[in-house]
Amino acid sequence: MSETASATPLSAADVALFNKWWHAANYLSIAQIYLLANPLLREPLKLEHTKPRLLGHWGTTPGLNFLYLHLNRIIREQDRSILFVAGPGHGAPGVVASTYLEGTYSEYFPEVTQDADGLARLVKQFSFPGGIPSHAAPTTPGSINEGGELGYSLSHSYGAVFDNPDLIVACVVGDGEAETGPLATSWHSNKFLDPKTDGAVLPILHLNGYKIANPTVLARISPEELLSLFRGYGYDPIVVEGDDPDTMHQKMAVAMDTAFAAISKIQKAAREDNDTTRPMWPMIIMRTPKGWTCPKTVDGLRTEGYWRAHQVPITDLTKPEHLKLLDTWLHSYKPEELFDENGTLMPEIAALAPKGERRMSMNPHANGGLLRRDLRLPDVTEYAVPVSSPGHELGEATRVLGSWLRDVMKENLSSRNFRVLAPDENNSNRLNAVLDVTNRAWNAETFDYDDRLAVDGHVMEILSEHTCQGWLEGYLLTGRHGFMSCYEAFIHIVDSMVNQHAKWIKQADEVSWRAPIASLNYLLTSHVWRQDHNGFSHQDPGFIDHVLNKKAKTVRVYLPPDANTLLCTAKTCLESRDRVNVIVAGKQPEPQWLDMESAIAHCAKGIGIWEWASNDKGGDPDVVMACAGDVPTMETLAAVQLLNKHLPDLKIRVINVVDLLTLESKSQHPDGLEDYVFDSLFTTDKPVIFAFHGYPALIHKLVYKRTNCRNFHVHGYREEGSTTTPFDMTVRNHLDRFHLVQNVIRHVPGLASRAAYANQAIADKLVEHTHYVAQYGKDLPEIVNWRWS
Amino acid sequence: MSETASATPLSAADVALFNKWWHAANYLSIAQIYLLANPLLREPLKLEHTKPRLLGHWGTTPGLNFLYLHLNRIIREQDRSILFVAGPGHGAPGVVASTYLEGTYSEYFPEVTQDADGLARLVKQFSFPGGIPSHAAPTTPGSINEGGELGYSLSHSYGAVFDNPDLIVACVVGDGEAETGPLATSWHSNKFLDPKTDGAVLPILHLNGYKIANPTVLARISPEELLSLFRGYGYDPIVVEGDDPDTMHQKMAVAMDTAFAAISKIQKAAREDNDTTRPMWPMIIMRTPKGWTCPKTVDGLRTEGYWRAHQVPITDLTKPEHLKLLDTWLHSYKPEELFDENGTLMPEIAALAPKGERRMSMNPHANGGLLRRDLRLPDVTEYAVPVSSPGHELGEATRVLGSWLRDVMKENLSSRNFRVLAPDENNSNRLNAVLDVTNRAWNAETFDYDDRLAVDGHVMEILSEHTCQGWLEGYLLTGRHGFMSCYEAFIHIVDSMVNQHAKWIKQADEVSWRAPIASLNYLLTSHVWRQDHNGFSHQDPGFIDHVLNKKAKTVRVYLPPDANTLLCTAKTCLESRDRVNVIVAGKQPEPQWLDMESAIAHCAKGIGIWEWASNDKGGDPDVVMACAGDVPTMETLAAVQLLNKHLPDLKIRVINVVDLLTLESKSQHPDGLEDYVFDSLFTTDKPVIFAFHGYPALIHKLVYKRTNCRNFHVHGYREEGSTTTPFDMTVRNHLDRFHLVQNVIRHVPGLASRAAYANQAIADKLVEHTHYVAQYGKDLPEIVNWRWS
Repeated sequence: MSETASATPLSAADVALFNKWWHAANYLSIAQIYLLANPLLREPLKLEHTKPRLLGHWGTTPGLNFLYLHLNRIIREQDRSILFVAGPGHGAPGVVASTYLEGTYSEYFPEVTQDADGLARLVKQFSFPGGIPSHAAPTTPGSINEGGELGYSLSHSYGAVFDNPDLIVACVVGDGEAETGPLATSWHSNKFLDPKTDGAVLPILHLNGYKIANPTVLARISPEELLSLFRGYGYDPIVVEGDDPDTMHQKMAVAMDTAFAAISKIQKAAREDNDTTRPMWPMIIMRTPKGWTCPKTVDGLRTEGYWRAHQVPITDLTKPEHLKLLDTWLHSYKPEELFDENGTLMPEIAALAPKGERRMSMNPHANGGLLRRDLRLPDVTEYAVPVSSPGHELGEATRVLGSWLRDVMKENLSSRNFRVLAPDENNSNRLNAVLDVTNRAWNAETFDYDDRLAVDGHVMEILSEHTCQGWLEGYLLTGRHGFMSCYEAFIHIVDSMVNQHAKWIKQADEVSWRAPIASLNYLLTSHVWRQDHNGFSHQDPGFIDHVLNKKAKTVRVYLPPDANTLLCTAKTCLESRDRVNVIVAGKQPEPQWLDMESAIAHCAKGIGIWEWASNDKGGDPDVVMACAGDVPTMETLAAVQLLNKHLPDLKIRVINVVDLLTLESKSQHPDGLEDYVFDSLFTTDKPVIFAFHGYPALIHKLVYKRTNCRNFHVHGYREEGSTTTPFDMTVRNHLDRFHLVQNVIRHVPGLASRAAYANQAIADKLVEHTHYVAQYGKDLPEIVNWRWS
Repeated sequence: MSETASATPLSAADVALFNKWWHAANYLSIAQIYLLANPLLREPLKLEHTKPRLLGHWGTTPGLNFLYLHLNRIIREQDRSILFVAGPGHGAPGVVASTYLEGTYSEYFPEVTQDADGLARLVKQFSFPGGIPSHAAPTTPGSINEGGELGYSLSHSYGAVFDNPDLIVACVVGDGEAETGPLATSWHSNKFLDPKTDGAVLPILHLNGYKIANPTVLARISPEELLSLFRGYGYDPIVVEGDDPDTMHQKMAVAMDTAFAAISKIQKAAREDNDTTRPMWPMIIMRTPKGWTCPKTVDGLRTEGYWRAHQVPITDLTKPEHLKLLDTWLHSYKPEELFDENGTLMPEIAALAPKGERRMSMNPHANGGLLRRDLRLPDVTEYAVPVSSPGHELGEATRVLGSWLRDVMKENLSSRNFRVLAPDENNSNRLNAVLDVTNRAWNAETFDYDDRLAVDGHVMEILSEHTCQGWLEGYLLTGRHGFMSCYEAFIHIVDSMVNQHAKWIKQADEVSWRAPIASLNYLLTSHVWRQDHNGFSHQDPGFIDHVLNKKAKTVRVYLPPDANTLLCTAKTCLESRDRVNVIVAGKQPEPQWLDMESAIAHCAKGIGIWEWASNDKGGDPDVVMACAGDVPTMETLAAVQLLNKHLPDLKIRVINVVDLLTLESKSQHPDGLEDYVFDSLFTTDKPVIFAFHGYPALIHKLVYKRTNCRNFHVHGYREEGSTTTPFDMTVRNHLDRFHLVQNVIRHVPGLASRAAYANQAIADKLVEHTHYVAQYGKDLPEIVNWRWS
């Protein structure tokens, strides 16, 4: 541990000036929370100058302002490229105030000028209808971390510095946020960082002791435990503790100097002496009172340094004594010494801000779309699986994709802007070809028998979906590209993170100065239909349902039925911007349907009739057999073959859906088919037997506005699973060929009477299947060896 | 740290016997993974004796078997009540083998006898169709933790020991699992444990070094960091490391003796000397080779102690050399010395198991339904909000609920079987009355000004939804009751956990010897419509969508429109069993609609016509105005009032939905209305303007089979939010009274022509609203002060 020395690197004049900046930032923070007008208190404060509803979080704000100021000193003195990530919840008053003081806010939002009028706009908009939220958001200059839902600041920060050797992210972690699971494990990100080719994260644990209504765990363990914990996480903590501002400025200056010197030393050793051994990275633990510098008590009740300072310390301004207390509090920062008569920050204070893009709020990495360079994507046709005729060959879709991803990695390796991530599942998901051209990132201990671990690897694996997701988000938000694979059932672990990212994308799209970023791309594999071996706990196709609640413009769901369609889909996803793309595809050997030319055409439309499998040429079908997903497609085609055999006169149209959102109405989703197109595919009155990868009700939800919606009969996952065979999974959920045939017979008018023999054959076959599986533990050879013909 | 002494507490005979048990457990584990028949190798091993598909995870198994054996020694010698929680993924071969050896498996599954026939059944069923999964599951005796999705073993363990002072949970944490976020923060659970009135958890970190394809982080940091990390978490680690079985038996015996002595000492200090200061609880770190005792190499490739031992070390038994290697491996445990000629475990080995309920697999806490006692629930009528006429009074629903929960807590405090949980939101969610009768559980440092923290408190708050959920699941699974409140948007953080719990409930219901447990009850408040102040990141009503994908029997969703209906609903939930109940209700002052008598009647049906708000008496309505949720109910009634004023001849029927699943078809959900009842409520042909709390498509999904489904026009959350006013939130999403009226006018045939004046008035009012909000930052007084009349 580096003890905080009692050195005094700052002159008395420095300290005085630092206090002025800090006072200005604190003053503007409080003004944002409380004031609707009269921002500089040039009139006596009256109730009508205050907001009708007091919102915002003072508690963490003075600490954030303090840190921002001290980071600015480092930038000025050392010409560093630093990003500020505010982990504590609802810290926007401070971040916005600081970015205003350094001028960025006025550059991005020209109406918020550097004068009294601008200040009035600044304070009014905060937590005000049509204004800005109380936490760092896409509207906040310099932010890549939404401070609404907590837990992701540190993984975002590491994501930002991967492949950005000159960038340092100062990540403030709140002691509330630190209790979340995602944050608790993300400290280990230092084992995945290359001091040579990556930048650095300086974590700053902000111990102010309280959450909304409770003390925090980390503030109430012994100093020994606290230091031990962070050393165990692999950091070298520097403690800065106190409440006297002048002393604290000196301590923090020493701590910052120490931390940045340590970073420089580590990076120098790695970059000049090639010593990439994992170092103990510095971190700062800052312990200050909650709501530092607010009234000690309000109505006689403890406030500063207590949970009552978490949000709004003075709550009822209709009480004259509260209004007076607010007035006194605001005046304690002496605004008249901070802003000139125009309401412009005094030049000597303003001079504490770095210049141009060195300002943390103007750092281009925080508006990553500006830095984004398109990936070089190899031509997918060169990776095509040969398909001599539909369904003839078998292929492992994700393994084929792996070859293409390998070359995406290879083509872009020199740009260092593409990473592949998985929660310890990259090989299990059969993307291992990527490891032919790069390694797994790993900077913990290695042994000579280790397999493709390297400090500069570009495949990221940790058994934490949260950390993978956080890294990827940070990487994308700073202008790079990525691809994450995951077992389908367990992607729900990051439901809430994808929510927040989708919301970020939607909001950023509404902020004029934010440039589009690369999409968040998921490959969900080891999916529900091939989790027969792992059983019920591994079976859940509901992530699709989850993402479809997000704003239509932002989300896409693809269900490519084979390898070539998967290749086309993956390319589309890596080319797209500002989206969350979900691809679901299996990793097991499955029949291949489309040659590359057909795959390209099919994926371009996203949905289409498979003429080669249909026999309704030139006329109306008796039934539409629709399918979405690889296993449902196979079962549908097997059902068609059975129907062709038993009921050769039946006119069947086969439709395959790759882009699930084509089913939705055009008014609901940009990919939605026009009604007349939909009707031309699905008819307006014929039964549609739909074999779907996920929960059946999702299809009903998508098509409820369509003319023929009442004739849709959807087969999908009915939450029935067990440890069983692949085909038995479909049988248990009625997605199998036999149940599909039975449903065709049930719903095509007049067919039942003609289909007695077929019905009996099907029923017999289901019984035979069940007995065979129970006895031999595998599927009937005719099922395993089935091919379309 | 307690160093492992070099003592040898075991005699040579003990060690020999321990090895025999361990060999038997390992042998049966491998037999389960590989064998279909010939379980004791009494015939020469042939390919047809092996499974067609090799599944299961050997890697963690020998370690689990080793620990199980040593815990049994402690139980025998010290007469302890211990539960075994297997955190490592897919550890079932070991757990099942151990429970078979101690006889429990045969008692629960009588066909799996203690002889060769029983062994044949035991080995065949594993990972075989219709059999058992490869991870601990509801079918596993003694298990309360599903080992499929990782991360929850430790929070489950703490949940199990709360209020169970005589119980100790030995929780094995895998080093893969330890990388997950939920696990990483759950180590801090020790700050919430009372050594006097709670039991103890003995965490055992099982460092075997590898995940599926990667090393683990904790196995690749220095010993100093590792010890430092766990001391920082507040534990006193005892390290047991090695690969020589005989030595390891001695080391583990010393470690177990040390750990249990430490637990006894801590508990004695708390219970006899009243010293409840948070102690450093013991933990064990066991470092052994992955797949310990399997072949060192297979095909010349490193296997034991490497990731290749993670699942099935020998993979292709069609190769004669692989079959032979398996044969050699199995014979290395000398099965002929372990089982007698009948195939029954030798009596001297069997004697190592504890007796009766002291066997970990027969511990009644692991089948908590057996121990469950119903809660004493106060009569809700005594907590009723007076409602003189509908909509006249205001009330804060969750605050009213808080009073009742306070007395639920009070009535059951002596039974110590009820806990209230929240991620630092108990007071924010206005359930603070509960703190009048108990405190917040807290055993970290306290100060004299702290607010209602106590070591034996029954309100659990940590800023980790995962930990709250894990504690609650552990508490419920061991036979107790609980109630968890959470901000609606952030409950998605535990989407995946609720998935797994719902799956557990469904499967446990199919296991004859598992008794029903209390339901998992959620109150989701601070909901989407009143997150106007926190903004877009806090707005997501999609958890309902998520839970509705789970098995119908298991899930319920309630949307009580006011305080009295909330009270009735909460009582129903606390009385129910084997369910996941989701209640969504607001905390803000809102109009109260039903007196208690009406509320009871309404909730009993779950859905009903509100006659007092309807004017279609004795005839068909022109329009049905339906609502579900508190804010949608208010907006619907305000719309009805506007319609009554402007279009007094319009016949309106108002339907309120409390139990959302009544909308679903009876064939899909037990609460679903019969079609004829549904039709009698919603008509078969009239427009239904439905104001819904959540995403609108969910209603379409629920009603798609109903006759009148095409006439449903649903208003709900359209993923449009910002920092704004409460009413503006409804306007932005078209859920407000004005948009509802506009939609009535649009959809009632012939109404548009009569409604020109009304339409204009509505349009003007929307403009006025928008201007007012932008100027004053609050809603129009006529909106704020609106009352039904």
